[in-house]
Amino acid sequence: MVLDQGPCGPSRKRTGRRTGARRHGAVQAREGRGVTLASLVPLLDHASVLVFALTGALVASRAQLDLVGFIFFATLTGIGGGTVRDLVLGRDPVFWVHRPELILLTAGAAVLVFFTAHLLESRYRLIVWLDAFALAVAVPAGVGLALEAGVSPVVAVAMGVVTGTFGGLIRDVIGNELPLVLKQGELYVTAAVGGAVVAVALIGVGMPRPVALIFCGLIVIALRAGSLALGWSLPTYRARPPRN
Amino acid sequence: MVLDQGPCGPSRKRTGRRTGARRHGAVQAREGRGVTLASLVPLLDHASVLVFALTGALVASRAQLDLVGFIFFATLTGIGGGTVRDLVLGRDPVFWVHRPELILLTAGAAVLVFFTAHLLESRYRLIVWLDAFALAVAVPAGVGLALEAGVSPVVAVAMGVVTGTFGGLIRDVIGNELPLVLKQGELYVTAAVGGAVVAVALIGVGMPRPVALIFCGLIVIALRAGSLALGWSLPTYRARPPRN
Amino acid sequence: MVLDQGPCGPSRKRTGRRTGARRHGAVQAREGRGVTLASLVPLLDHASVLVFALTGALVASRAQLDLVGFIFFATLTGIGGGTVRDLVLGRDPVFWVHRPELILLTAGAAVLVFFTAHLLESRYRLIVWLDAFALAVAVPAGVGLALEAGVSPVVAVAMGVVTGTFGGLIRDVIGNELPLVLKQGELYVTAAVGGAVVAVALIGVGMPRPVALIFCGLIVIALRAGSLALGWSLPTYRARPPRN
Repeated sequence: MVLDQGPCGPSRKRTGRRTGARRHGAVQAREGRGVTLASLVPLLDHASVLVFALTGALVASRAQLDLVGFIFFATLTGIGGGTVRDLVLGRDPVFWVHRPELILLTAGAAVLVFFTAHLLESRYRLIVWLDAFALAVAVPAGVGLALEAGVSPVVAVAMGVVTGTFGGLIRDVIGNELPLVLKQGELYVTAAVGGAVVAVALIGVGMPRPVALIFCGLIVIALRAGSLALGWSLPTYRARPPRN
Repeated sequence: MVLDQGPCGPSRKRTGRRTGARRHGAVQAREGRGVTLASLVPLLDHASVLVFALTGALVASRAQLDLVGFIFFATLTGIGGGTVRDLVLGRDPVFWVHRPELILLTAGAAVLVFFTAHLLESRYRLIVWLDAFALAVAVPAGVGLALEAGVSPVVAVAMGVVTGTFGGLIRDVIGNELPLVLKQGELYVTAAVGGAVVAVALIGVGMPRPVALIFCGLIVIALRAGSLALGWSLPTYRARPPRN
Repeated sequence: MVLDQGPCGPSRKRTGRRTGARRHGAVQAREGRGVTLASLVPLLDHASVLVFALTGALVASRAQLDLVGFIFFATLTGIGGGTVRDLVLGRDPVFWVHRPELILLTAGAAVLVFFTAHLLESRYRLIVWLDAFALAVAVPAGVGLALEAGVSPVVAVAMGVVTGTFGGLIRDVIGNELPLVLKQGELYVTAAVGGAVVAVALIGVGMPRPVALIFCGLIVIALRAGSLALGWSLPTYRARPPRN
């Protein structure tokens, strides 16, 4: 949260005063562990912005948009999940408002995809796999930021899932793609929830947060990759045909 | 608002100080009427979370998702409307962030539906009827919270409509269902607006807020049920075929 | 921002204190130029609310909704873009919460369209053209408000694009229309980005903000109209058929 305040860093103490939750976060940030966490979480957050941006640009390529359309979808997808998370947590303003470099990052990803997507075998497969990696970095970032904000483990799990899934949700809803959350027999939300639950559990038993968040990301990618490559899945509801 | 602050209750006075609107709300909360209202509104709000969650889980069953998918849709639908309302009203953080029990509630509703939905005659009819009941508790909750925040009657009506309709909207947009707001010849938004308008009118002529909010809920369910069961409707625009 | 606070004007100073960005904005508002700007920006903002509301009502007519459905879509479309912008910028509460007249304005636009849409040759063409004009007033309004909030030029451009495009995006996603951002070979987001970039560039070289914002609007409408009437476009991605 410290690093995430950018230019309005000084306002952190003020926001820190605004709720018990915030003060809690500020205190941790002053501890050694908090500092380590403060250095890991933004790294994960920015990595997820970049990789989600690539998926957004690939969806723009499937919709045959122009370069600006690529930038629009890349930016929307890259910052969407973290924006919803920050709004819900009351982090004011949201993380990219004083981080112009993040929008330049998503724009750069869009330009890269615009000129190289035709080299790809299957853009859809790449979208799905890049989305899996973005999910694996965004979920721990969301859990970490939520815990810094002092919320309960259950809400931290929800924030990890929001951070991981909403960028892709916005991308798919606006881009007329089937939202990945609706893909039957795939572990997607489950991968996010699984990693987030393990993270809060490990932290609950005393594991240092940065280590727990790394475990979180590994579990998310393991579950998601296992589902994509090996067909891992949970039983789905099939009592009767849908749309009855 | 008082009860809605949960763990960050102490911060209520601070937020209370942030805008005239907030101070206004805080003052009312100190009056006898405010206290009664403060006990009714969260009750309505939580009831709507539970019932909307059931509809979200039923949409997940139509999409044949797994148990985690059910929890995802149940939670999104249960807290979606109130979340948008709180963001727009600037209630920081949104109502469920310090209320982990609400997410456990929506998760429980999802588990219940996952194991019992196959027993239902028509899941779609149940979605529509449960949504009607959720609408009838969410609209007065939204109107009550908006008035506590000191907004004008017109905006309070808008907040009632947002609280009542956005959870279902998010559910339907993400779940690839036709949004209920698009069902022709049905009273849906009209039921929400009608109940909300009557509530602010009754409060305007001096009726105690809790009583007016109960009237509001009864009018919403009466209009919606009359539309579903008896075909009540307003004339729709039919000057020419759509999509011309 | 000054005029935009309405009844909670007194709270502006408080919000002004909340972040360096806000203080910066408040300071500018006290300069002569800021005052002029403060009189132009809300004018643009309200004009865009009205024109976007007309497009929302026209979408409701294509969906053959009733009068309340028209009001719902008109309001959602009219205030949607500015609401997302205000949430992201942390302007609390969003611009219309203490401006009931704006909702009455969108409702009036809906009533007008409900009773006159049948007179139109093609409602779809009118939606597209009205949307173009709304875009041309909303983008400079968003850029102006973002600069008042003290964000960087890159983020100001993003805010102009959000303000200009999100109302229509929400309208199209909920109303089951193809989002304009997905129309291939049309300048839409490009028109918004182009106008916003020119505005921040002109301000960067010292042009008075109100003049630069007027240029911004002229460039947006010129690019959009040139695309609609003369087929102006940027090369789109066509390496291979979509959905492969």
